[in-house]
Amino acid sequence: MSQPSVINIGICGLGTVGQGVWKHLARSRAALESRLGVRLKLHRASVRDLRKARAVRVPASRLTTDPLAVATDPAVQIVCELIGGTGVAREVTLAALRLGKTVVSANKALLCAHGPEIFAAARKNGGHFFFEASVAGGIPIIKALREGLVANRFGLIYGILNGTCNYILTRMEREGLGYAEILADAKRLGYAEADESLDVEGWDTAHKAGILAFLAHGAWVPTRAMLVEGITRITQTDLQFAREHGFAIKLLAVITRDFASDELFVRVHPTLLPLSKVLANVNDVYNGISVTGDVVGETTYIGRGAGQDATASAVISDIADAVILLNRGNSPLPAPVAQRCPLAPPERIRSRYYLRLDVRDRPGVLAQIATATARAGVSIADMVQRPSKHRNAATLLLTTHESNEQAIRATLARFRRLSNVLGEPLLLRIFAS
Amino acid sequence: MSQPSVINIGICGLGTVGQGVWKHLARSRAALESRLGVRLKLHRASVRDLRKARAVRVPASRLTTDPLAVATDPAVQIVCELIGGTGVAREVTLAALRLGKTVVSANKALLCAHGPEIFAAARKNGGHFFFEASVAGGIPIIKALREGLVANRFGLIYGILNGTCNYILTRMEREGLGYAEILADAKRLGYAEADESLDVEGWDTAHKAGILAFLAHGAWVPTRAMLVEGITRITQTDLQFAREHGFAIKLLAVITRDFASDELFVRVHPTLLPLSKVLANVNDVYNGISVTGDVVGETTYIGRGAGQDATASAVISDIADAVILLNRGNSPLPAPVAQRCPLAPPERIRSRYYLRLDVRDRPGVLAQIATATARAGVSIADMVQRPSKHRNAATLLLTTHESNEQAIRATLARFRRLSNVLGEPLLLRIFAS
Repeated sequence: MSQPSVINIGICGLGTVGQGVWKHLARSRAALESRLGVRLKLHRASVRDLRKARAVRVPASRLTTDPLAVATDPAVQIVCELIGGTGVAREVTLAALRLGKTVVSANKALLCAHGPEIFAAARKNGGHFFFEASVAGGIPIIKALREGLVANRFGLIYGILNGTCNYILTRMEREGLGYAEILADAKRLGYAEADESLDVEGWDTAHKAGILAFLAHGAWVPTRAMLVEGITRITQTDLQFAREHGFAIKLLAVITRDFASDELFVRVHPTLLPLSKVLANVNDVYNGISVTGDVVGETTYIGRGAGQDATASAVISDIADAVILLNRGNSPLPAPVAQRCPLAPPERIRSRYYLRLDVRDRPGVLAQIATATARAGVSIADMVQRPSKHRNAATLLLTTHESNEQAIRATLARFRRLSNVLGEPLLLRIFAS
Repeated sequence: MSQPSVINIGICGLGTVGQGVWKHLARSRAALESRLGVRLKLHRASVRDLRKARAVRVPASRLTTDPLAVATDPAVQIVCELIGGTGVAREVTLAALRLGKTVVSANKALLCAHGPEIFAAARKNGGHFFFEASVAGGIPIIKALREGLVANRFGLIYGILNGTCNYILTRMEREGLGYAEILADAKRLGYAEADESLDVEGWDTAHKAGILAFLAHGAWVPTRAMLVEGITRITQTDLQFAREHGFAIKLLAVITRDFASDELFVRVHPTLLPLSKVLANVNDVYNGISVTGDVVGETTYIGRGAGQDATASAVISDIADAVILLNRGNSPLPAPVAQRCPLAPPERIRSRYYLRLDVRDRPGVLAQIATATARAGVSIADMVQRPSKHRNAATLLLTTHESNEQAIRATLARFRRLSNVLGEPLLLRIFAS
């Protein structure tokens, strides 16, 4: 038998994920080599600081501070872009793809912002771009959508895609503490970034929703065209109301396709999810995704959505797929077929809603609220009044029958004009499948 | 651009699954062709009876009663073996593979019984054998284990793999009715076969467990070497006891690998599964699989395990993968690396146990039971006495602390020698992860 060929791997960025890939690739190399019939070599890695101590031991001769030198090294066939962000990461990715190399990426922000440019560069130069680690960490959801469920059209995909938000909501629910308190603790424990806004405001989830929408529907939806809301205003009052009414509150990405009109809806918001749904019981840092296909029905995928090891598992599976491709003459992979699916304006979303608002505790206020709601064309399903933390005030919690975003926004506009409504009401959506 | 090549597909067996594949392939052909860059042609199909009416319309010119003629037709590149069983199905599969064709199969019994022969025939002649539909219907679990989680070693895989059993147990639990009554209804509704034994005795689950064990550990475990028990003796008494103690009863396949000794355990039995586990809440005909990898942690997959549409979804995904391979020069796919993992004897399984036994309602009997258990080296955790349906008898329900199969079997042997024990006690295992 001839000598097995050597595949050289370059890693740009030896942070948490990069070190995880290095560590697990080194550990499982023999098994992977035997399975894939090649020799795998961790050829080179780029770091920001050569002198920094790292948990994985990398010979100094293999380190550089120049990620572009790794990405364009003629010996490197597979480039792992694990730098993150959309600056250097984009340069590195495009430089490697322009040389016909294969890029493996965990970078959802880059993909969401520059997907078409990246795939065009890969196609034009005969390289490939793999991104299993960009959504839901170690859960092979990209592969499931792209390959395993290829016979299906996807009417509904929804999921918990951000581990930080799920961790915060789970602990708030479990421990009865406030958002700020749990967030501070999550930061201390390393479950939230120093700047948490990308996670808690919903943007990280929106990036991942954009990638899933592309895989399922062949269209890139910019985050600015999505409805995106975060979890920062959720309180114990909301969690308790939800629980008493048979719901958990989860930050969900919801991607729906109406096959009659062909319209695509992509949105991210905290949602009252019935406890009977599997995903309502997916807690802590776990992610979960429900995919309904017109042939297969509903399928559900659950696992750790982030962290060094889960992400490394996904990156290494992409490396293995890339090796198989390279070994086979590197012909193009099938890509999602670009589809004409008009993006529906958020105003057209239909849902049941939950509203929490503080009002002055005065005669006639309840009637004002009920009238404002009715005039906006929204029908109340359930209303309770609770003591407010403000003096001479009450908190109203209400749910509506099915309505739409336009009507509910008109309701909120009416509330804002009432002097008896104190501050900005909180609006949450209630999941219906 | 050159004309896209034509891939001819032959279907052996136009039963429920075969018709589903024909129907959905015809419907989604344009999308698949555009994605894969080929033309797909449903070239030929074999049936048992040419005159039988079918839900899908197939031109008479494309039908034959000879499955081997389809499998060996020089024009056919991909053969779908959807006949089932291990007779004609094996002939058809091997005939196609010997001609270097690619076979797509939903046949778990065949694969479990003849896996090594089938893969050897594929390897020798440059063909491929795909089997996503053989385990858990439309859930892409084969792809997840083989590709998505390739970086992992699997300490624990467990799952609900038989929809008929899960349907029966779910309805017994929900409606408070007996096994026989629900089984009869399941047959009437088409959720159970006329001969239900393969399902309810655990053999169908064992076939699937064998396939998962092969994918995860590279070793074929014959079903005769597994511990296999079915659900036929489960009663309302057991379900109620389980529920009161925080468990659901599910027929599970459990595949464990002890990385210290390298031993592999494969077993199938009804199990008391804590309600806190996601799979305890997977009901009706749904399947669910939990896969714990040493890198990724626990991942869970849920979906319909059988039925025309879910199975067709899996078969069509295999066809798409086969087309990509064929288009790319048909080089060999990586196979699980054969591993030396000694199969542990069932006696070595450690577990907590649940026992139900009818005893004569006499002074001293409880002491006899407690003594027999203690002498066999098993320690009782919990015991309750309930009225028995037999006269002058009582039903004892007990759980043990962690023990092992050898000790619990010795306990049962001691019970059998006691004249105060009526009939054969029921033994169930309690899940601990």
